[in-house]
Amino acid sequence: MPASSNLTLFGKTVRRLREELGYSQEELAERAGLHRNYVGGVERGERNIALDNIVKLAKALSVRSRDLFQSLP
Amino acid sequence: MPASSNLTLFGKTVRRLREELGYSQEELAERAGLHRNYVGGVERGERNIALDNIVKLAKALSVRSRDLFQSLP
Repeated sequence: MPASSNLTLFGKTVRRLREELGYSQEELAERAGLHRNYVGGVERGERNIALDNIVKLAKALSVRSRDLFQSLP
Repeated sequence: MPASSNLTLFGKTVRRLREELGYSQEELAERAGLHRNYVGGVERGERNIALDNIVKLAKALSVRSRDLFQSLP
């Protein structure tokens, strides 16, 4: 799927929060119950991530789901 | 898809905001560029809506995407 700017903005927020916590992509994926390749795709804005996985990622990053949308319209 | 509680919470927020604006489901769907049946499914928590459509719905409801997550973890 081609990256949309919204997916890219979302992915950058995920990456920033992950790095702030010092997690590798693999570690985040494990905590969220998702595949490492999938998390990489989300961070690069290549995945049109759906609501259930947004909530899983937020929980694994110790933030609320709404915080992952902070840079989106 | 069976409804998760997060999808249900999201759908209730969409419905509340839509009703506050006095839009029908059909009107909201048209403004968002989505199908009326799809919007109904989202409001009932039956659709695991993805990021691009979340942003479209938020725009059509004149809120930011993060506001649609206000009742979610």
